[in-house]
Formats: sequence, structure tokens, C-alpha cells
Amino acid sequence: MSYDEFYVKSVIRSLPDWPEPGVLFRDITPIFKDPRALRMVADAFIHRYLDSGITHIACIDARGFLFGSILAHQLNLPLVLVRKKGKLPGDTIHQEYQLEYGTSAVEMQADSVSAGDRVLLFDDLIATGGTILAACTLIKKLGAEIVEAAALIDLPDLKGSALIQEAGVPVYTLLAYEGS
Amino acid sequence: MSYDEFYVKSVIRSLPDWPEPGVLFRDITPIFKDPRALRMVADAFIHRYLDSGITHIACIDARGFLFGSILAHQLNLPLVLVRKKGKLPGDTIHQEYQLEYGTSAVEMQADSVSAGDRVLLFDDLIATGGTILAACTLIKKLGAEIVEAAALIDLPDLKGSALIQEAGVPVYTLLAYEGS
Repeated sequence: MSYDEFYVKSVIRSLPDWPEPGVLFRDITPIFKDPRALRMVADAFIHRYLDSGITHIACIDARGFLFGSILAHQLNLPLVLVRKKGKLPGDTIHQEYQLEYGTSAVEMQADSVSAGDRVLLFDDLIATGGTILAACTLIKKLGAEIVEAAALIDLPDLKGSALIQEAGVPVYTLLAYEGS
Repeated sequence: MSYDEFYVKSVIRSLPDWPEPGVLFRDITPIFKDPRALRMVADAFIHRYLDSGITHIACIDARGFLFGSILAHQLNLPLVLVRKKGKLPGDTIHQEYQLEYGTSAVEMQADSVSAGDRVLLFDDLIATGGTILAACTLIKKLGAEIVEAAALIDLPDLKGSALIQEAGVPVYTLLAYEGS
């Protein structure tokens, strides 16, 4: 059985009022509990990025790690990590970004990618796009090119995927939930 | 080339005084940047757990996610997550544990494992064992059996692996660093 959007959507759980009232949270943890769903999702991305000229996969802490490591392993590509500030050892660079209230920052190791590298940036879900745009800034600062920002889920009403594309980075997602 | 401890150890980076003075940090991020090293490490665990009767893999946030998801994908087993408190949606149970100064807590979704399940618990490194022991308590509370606690690296001088075994949970690690 190849990729079946209906099946994968049936496995994702929608939880109202989490992490705060008014938010409908799309919980992807059941995908990892269902080997068929996980294989479908992983294969869809593996097929897309086979022979794509990508040299590195960058993945975002922590749910992005779950997909990123499978893709890197299957495609025999180096995997580099984007984490919250203070979590990565060695020389790092960081980028702040705006949250609804306050700011946050993401960090990468300074030797994680460099000029000439063609990077796939992976997270589980694109909402407002703040984390992904900050990660794009870091990857560009290190001199590498971002071939695509990819995620399992897009929430297009939150406009993150549009913002990322306006920043010149192509976006690819498997699923979208409107009205969230 | 099958698993080569000398090669894998040559890829792991040792960083003095991180995250605090006096600590020699074993940085595994270079393993994920080296597809040969990652494949060696992953294959060593995959070979061990093929046909082992394990029904679920539980992995610990965040570096444990990187290995756990590859193993779950390769072995076609359900993957469940152990995270810091407040990160997992839905009904959860949590367990506090002692740190050098203060306490921390880990959490699992209440439906992640249940009676009859045979769980492999995976993290990247075993130091004092606090997080792994707290995760073992959660898995047992949910009625499941822990077949083994596994990690890439053991730091035996910190006595975590001995404590976990004293708690009745077998431990398996690929590498050990003495004197750390």
C-alpha cells in the first residue's frame, strides 16, 4: 500500500484546547505508534528526496528529530540539529524569533553546514513559521542553501507556509488542516 | 563493514567543561553527520532486537528520539515517547526524579503502553540513570514489561547502569567511557 492521505489523517489525533484554550492540537504521536502510518509517511518523503541533490537534512527539536533521523538514515545523508538555545555543545550560532508573547531562539552548531551544502529543513508541522524561518536564517548565515522546508502537516490559516515561501524557500507538506 | 567500535568512537567528540566546568561531554551529534557511523550504530541495535519479542520502543526526549525512531522504523515496531512534563498532549502520567540540585519529571501518554507489552527503552547515553529509572517506573505503572534499557554510551563511573540493573532492568550499551 503506498501513501494514503485518508489513512494517515485517520491516525492523527485532534485534541481541543491544548496546549491552551481555543487551540485544536494535531497530535502526531499516534503515527509513531502505528508502523504502517509511519512507513507511509516516511516513504512519501524518501521517494521525494531520493536523487534530489540534497546534501544535508536539518531537523528541528524535538518532533522534527523523529522524522529527520529516519530520512537521513534511509537516504544516507548527514543529519544536523536545530535546537533551543543552550542545548548543543561546541561552537554554535543562534537566531531569535518572535512568539505571540516574547521571544525564543534556536541554535545550530557552527560546523553543521557550510557553503555549497544543499539542505532540506524538516519539522513535523508548519504553523506560524517562526521556528522554521529562524532556522532558515541560521542555515543561510552558515553559507548553505535551503532546497526546501518540509513538514508532515501544514496549518495554512496560520500563514507560516506562505511566509516561508515569501522568504524564497520552497515548502512541501503532506497534509493540510484548514480552519485551525 | 559491520560495527566498528574504534571507528564510532573516533566520530564521537569529547568536549571539556560542557555544559558546566569539570564535565567532559560526549557529543554524539557527529554520528548523525556521518552516514557510515549512523548506519553502523543503527545496524548494531537492529540486529540485536530483530526477532527479540519486543513489542514497543520507548525513547527519551530529545537525543533518544534520534535513535529510537530509526529503530522503530526499521523493526516495524510502535514508538512511544518519554518527554519532560508538559510536552505531551492527551492523558498523561508523570514521574519525578532527583537531580544533583532539585528535581525534574518525565511524562508519557497514558495509552502509550499497557499490560502485555514488552518494551525496549532507548536513550543516547546512561549517566546517573535518573531519567531512565523514572521512565522505567512510568512503563511499569502502565502495566508493561521493560525488556531492556539500551543506549549508545555508558558512563559506568556515574553508576547509572548499575542502578538500573539493580532495579531489575537489563542494560545494553554499545560503548563505555570510563573515568568520566
